[in-house]
Parts: sequence; structure tokens; C-alpha cells
Amino acid sequence: MSRGFPTAEYQARTQKAQSLMAQADLAALLLTTEAEVRYFTGYQTRFWESPARPWFVIVPASGRPVAVIPSIGAALMARTWIQDIRSWRAPDLQDDGVGLLTQTLNEIAGGGRIGLPDGHETHLRMPLADYHRLAGQIDGTLTGDQGIIRRLRMVKSAAEITKIEATCQIAGRAFDRVPQIARAGVPLAQVFRHFQMLGLEEGADWVPYVAGAAAAEGYDDVISPASDAPLAAGDVLMLDTGMMCDGYFCDFDRNFSLGPPSAAVQAAHDRLIDATDAAADLARPGVTAAQLFHAMDGIVTGGAGGSDTGRLGHGLGMQLTEWPSLIPQDHTVLEPGMVLTLEPGIATGGGMMVHEENIVITQDGCRFLSPRADRNLVEL
Amino acid sequence: MSRGFPTAEYQARTQKAQSLMAQADLAALLLTTEAEVRYFTGYQTRFWESPARPWFVIVPASGRPVAVIPSIGAALMARTWIQDIRSWRAPDLQDDGVGLLTQTLNEIAGGGRIGLPDGHETHLRMPLADYHRLAGQIDGTLTGDQGIIRRLRMVKSAAEITKIEATCQIAGRAFDRVPQIARAGVPLAQVFRHFQMLGLEEGADWVPYVAGAAAAEGYDDVISPASDAPLAAGDVLMLDTGMMCDGYFCDFDRNFSLGPPSAAVQAAHDRLIDATDAAADLARPGVTAAQLFHAMDGIVTGGAGGSDTGRLGHGLGMQLTEWPSLIPQDHTVLEPGMVLTLEPGIATGGGMMVHEENIVITQDGCRFLSPRADRNLVEL
Repeated sequence: MSRGFPTAEYQARTQKAQSLMAQADLAALLLTTEAEVRYFTGYQTRFWESPARPWFVIVPASGRPVAVIPSIGAALMARTWIQDIRSWRAPDLQDDGVGLLTQTLNEIAGGGRIGLPDGHETHLRMPLADYHRLAGQIDGTLTGDQGIIRRLRMVKSAAEITKIEATCQIAGRAFDRVPQIARAGVPLAQVFRHFQMLGLEEGADWVPYVAGAAAAEGYDDVISPASDAPLAAGDVLMLDTGMMCDGYFCDFDRNFSLGPPSAAVQAAHDRLIDATDAAADLARPGVTAAQLFHAMDGIVTGGAGGSDTGRLGHGLGMQLTEWPSLIPQDHTVLEPGMVLTLEPGIATGGGMMVHEENIVITQDGCRFLSPRADRNLVEL
Repeated sequence: MSRGFPTAEYQARTQKAQSLMAQADLAALLLTTEAEVRYFTGYQTRFWESPARPWFVIVPASGRPVAVIPSIGAALMARTWIQDIRSWRAPDLQDDGVGLLTQTLNEIAGGGRIGLPDGHETHLRMPLADYHRLAGQIDGTLTGDQGIIRRLRMVKSAAEITKIEATCQIAGRAFDRVPQIARAGVPLAQVFRHFQMLGLEEGADWVPYVAGAAAAEGYDDVISPASDAPLAAGDVLMLDTGMMCDGYFCDFDRNFSLGPPSAAVQAAHDRLIDATDAAADLARPGVTAAQLFHAMDGIVTGGAGGSDTGRLGHGLGMQLTEWPSLIPQDHTVLEPGMVLTLEPGIATGGGMMVHEENIVITQDGCRFLSPRADRNLVEL
């Protein structure tokens, strides 16, 4: 498997950003988070797990992005297509990069407007006091990015889709092997650990996300950590994973039944599959995120408008969840290259069940990236 | 193993915070990140991997913290000691919790000062536009937390130290098994995957961090992702991991030699062990972080004042890296209960080598939490 992307991928991203920046009268973009920095540079490391050091990338009005980063990362950044790399020895308790960033922004953006991602699903990964210091001392003005980063990242290139699909295949092979690790008597926490091992064995670089639950006639929560309670005959087991390979996520789940499922559980699973089918049948360029929501909601609640989980799917790519949201409010118009999860949930006698698949929007419809779940629940 | 903490742990944290808040004239603390929220509530989930939703916890001047969170998390939060849980159905594109947060802050803090963590190693995990909206519409004033959260989290309770030590033991057992997975001809990327599997098999809940490198006579980078280059005779292999068990990290590494090490490599490793010993011999209450730096730097550079990696250790606990930093500038005075990494690095003919152990400061010295590395490099 080929790792990373050719430089042309980053050039295309940068040029698209610069075109939107010109329309928005932005002299530069200032980026601080792992996904934003990686999107424009290809800089990939698990070192972001440490919150100690801030990292900055500036997208200028023209030319390559400029990195203003701790010296510990300069060698790795120099292996990307970025040429202008300025670094300081971090952490520096007097000035942790703000002086160098000020100087660089003044040089690149002058007195112009500098856009920071500031909308839903974003945050600024730098100390708040340093943000206020920066805003007070640069020649230009800090403002929002007007959704430019969201708009770019929402539509994936062919190369990105290939990577997401590869990760989906890895997770699919791990799900196929769940019968090897889960049976009555095995603690749920052990199932979680062994499922992550299966993902790694099948080729994931790491497993950033595993959630799940097991209970009779449906579960009541899909975000809790696993307890040591053993699986029992009659349980429905759900495992949901966001695995990572070469910088791209999958995000889908599978349900299993400990022994034959009850008629009610199998019927609920049927409805979840039907809901996924309904959304996939509808999904094509021009349809909205809200329309996909309603297609599924009509089947799982009879059109009640959803539940407390809040959405029935979302974007997917460099992060476990990305824009848009499949909710009634989100009228994002689908375009070829958008990668989405379809994630209907349904109330059952014992709680709830959820199901999730991953699709990509094509020229005239959609294509599943995750190997589709069988309608009949797999028995363990 | 007992999971989580009794309520008394959270009560003690909250009361200490409230005492410091009174001194700092803060009517409330507003917290937004995973570690901050978990520190005061015990709320534990891998769902933070999704950037879609903001989460808020308010520490009032007295009484229990108040949660203002997406409804998808309300059931799990209700299993903690938190009683006042206010939720909205997120994501909400019109108002993603800011209205509810405003109302709650006005009720709790009135026109008072509300502290947000704003110093080094912190960030605000909410959209920047929503932060500005909040600041403009609440009755009170948003300001910094004056380092209160840092000060509290830097000194661990006995129960926290027990959890960190348990995670260190898990990683120690995984390191002991590296000879099972690493030998000449095995690609480094496969060693990374299999090492994570060993950590899971030995009891880690998940493996948020693995880094490492392999090269003859020392490596040149300690934060890059693994390539598919096979290990070769004569290589020095370094693996560094931050595993997680029950919410607490370890962070240490081990070096291995593919076949007998060269005299220069073994000598470099000796110096790293000597440096760790020197810092551990010095470490006790009243000594500063800077003094630990100089004790190690004197041995690994002859007192040159460090290198581009920027520090020779750091705090450790709920996050892979925490306050303080072992750097010349950091005059944090050590106290019993602080957990630190000792992480000297040394230049070698072929690049560098690093070594890392974890210690806790005791009443009259320190104690190793990681099972100490042998002075003689383990041969693979």
C-alpha cells in the first residue's frame, strides 16, 4: 500500500483554499489542530497526543503553506512538501511560539484579515491567553475562516476515498472475526480489547475509537466504556469502531446475537437495514443531508424527528466525525466525493439498537465503502 | 481491579478547587476538555474522539459541579456523582448549547468572574465563534483560571498513583514480550502494530500513543510514524508508549539492539541510565523541575543546556504529558504525589538515543512506577 499522498494532492487543496480566501478577502488562514495541519502539509504523527506544545500552519494568499512549529517536529515536517519551516524550542514558558508566529503573520498577511476555523465542530488548539496576546499584537486582524476549511474537507479526492475504503475493509475483516473472541461468559471489556487486537492484526495503524454495548433485547447506551460484565445468552452485542489507517478513518458498527435473536430484536435489526437501504437509495448529488435523515427517520421512528442521540449519520474522513450532520436542520447539498456514515437507531423493548455503514456519494448515486452487514443477525 | 474512584475523590478535588477559586475571586470555573471534565466528574468515554459536540462542566463556588452537555451523554453522566445535568440535543446548528450555558452560568456565577484554563498546555474545546458569543452575552466576565487546574492536577492522590502504576506494569509486561515480535526482517510498522496488541493483551484499555524508531548507531527522530522498512542486524530499536488503563497513562520507552550492540551504542545507553539515576537520586520534595533537568543534562550533554527536543521529562497522569516540564526555565517545586517522566536523550554517532522512566515523588525521595530498564541493552 502506498502511504501518504503525492505533492499534487496538497497543491490542489492549497490552491482551492486560496481561491476561496480571495473571495472572502482573507490574507491568510491560521490553523492549529492535527487534522487542519495534516490536511495542508501531510504532517502525520501521533505526537499530538501530548497537549504540551502548540503547532501552527499558515496558508498564505499564494504559495506553499508555512509551518511555525516546535523544533522537535522540524525534521519530520521537512519530509513533507513544506519548505518554509520556522521553529522554536518548545515548551518555552516566556514565549511559546507567539513571538515567532506574530512575526511570520505580519510578514505574510501584513495588516490583512487572517481566518481561523471558528464554526461548529472546530476549536482553537492553542492556549487562550496566547490567542488574546496574538490578537493584540499582530498587524492584521483575526477573524473566522467563513467555513472554508469545512467546505474543502467535506468533499474528498479519489485518493482520500481509496484510503477510507481501505480502512473500512480492515475493520470489516476484524468484524468478520468477532465470533473468534466473543461468546457467552466473556467479559465485555475483554471483547473490546480483543476486538482492537483484531483490527491491528488486520492492518489498522491504530484503533482510536471502540464503543459498544451488550444487553438483552437491546442496549441503553452507545458511548460508555466497557464493564467486566460477561456476555450472556440472549444478549445483543454491538461493536462500533473508528479505526485508522494511513491517516483515514472508518466508522461503522455491527450487531451480534448471543444465540438465536428474539423475533423483536431481529425485527428491529431488519428496520435498521431497511433505513440504511432507504438512505442509500436516495443518496445522490443534489439531495440534502436533511433528506437522508428523514428517509431513515421515517422508518425507525415513523417520522418522529429523531431521538436524543441527535443525528442519524455524519461526514467521515481524517476525523471520526466530520461535516455534515444528518439532522433536520442541516441542508448541506450532497456532492460527489462526500463520504458519509448512515447511522440509524431504533427503540427496542430493552432499550435501543443502532446500525452504521459508510458510503461515498458518486456522480449518480452512492457506493458503500463498508462491507454491508447481513440482514440476519450473526449469532455467536 | 476496581474501576474509577469513590465519590470522596471527586469531592476532595472540587473542594480544593473551590478553596483556590475563593482566593482568586472566581465565582465559577468553566471546563471544556476531556481531562478537565473527567477530573471533576469521573465522566469517562472514548466518544471525545468525535469533534462534533462541545461539552461543558461548571465548578461553582460551592456544591457539586454542574454539567451542560449533549443529550447523548446525559445517561452516562447520570452514573457519576454529578446531579445537576442540563442537556440539549446536539448538534444544533442554531444554538449548540451556548444559550443553555449562558443561562446556567448566569444562575451560578451571576455577574462574577468565570475562570477558564488559559495557560500553557491548555486549550478551549469549543468553537471560537461560540466563545465570543458567550463572552458577549453572559452577565459575568470570562477570565483565566490563574493556573488552578494545573496546580490541582499536578499533585496526584494515592488512588491516582495506584492507577498510573498499574498502567506502567501493563506496559512493562508488553515491553518484556518485544522479543516475541521484533527481529531482523520484520517491518517497523508491523512491530508497532504487534506491540499495541501486546499492550492490549496485557490489559491496556487502549493504546493512545506509540512512537519509536530503528536505525544503526542511534535514530534521528522519535515522533515519526513507522515505515515498512524491515529491522536489520545492528539496528537500535526504540519503542515509546503511552498506554491507558482506567483513565490513567504510563509514558516510558525501551531500547533494544538487533544483535550485540556496538560499544558506542552500549556506552550511550549507559549514560542514559546514569542520567535517569542522577535525576532519581536528586528527586525529592523541595527540589525543582529545573534541577532535575540539570542533573540529567550534565550527564548527557556535559551541561550544554539541552537539545531541540526541548525537555528531559514532564508530568504524567490523565494525559500523556502534563505539567511540569523538566527544562531550565521551569522552577516548579516538587511535592509528594507528583508523577514525572525522566526522559534523557543523548547524541550518538548515528543520531540519538532516548530513554524514559516514570517516578512518583514521595515524602523523602522518589519511587519508580515503571519497572526499570536493564543497563545492558536487550538483544533481539
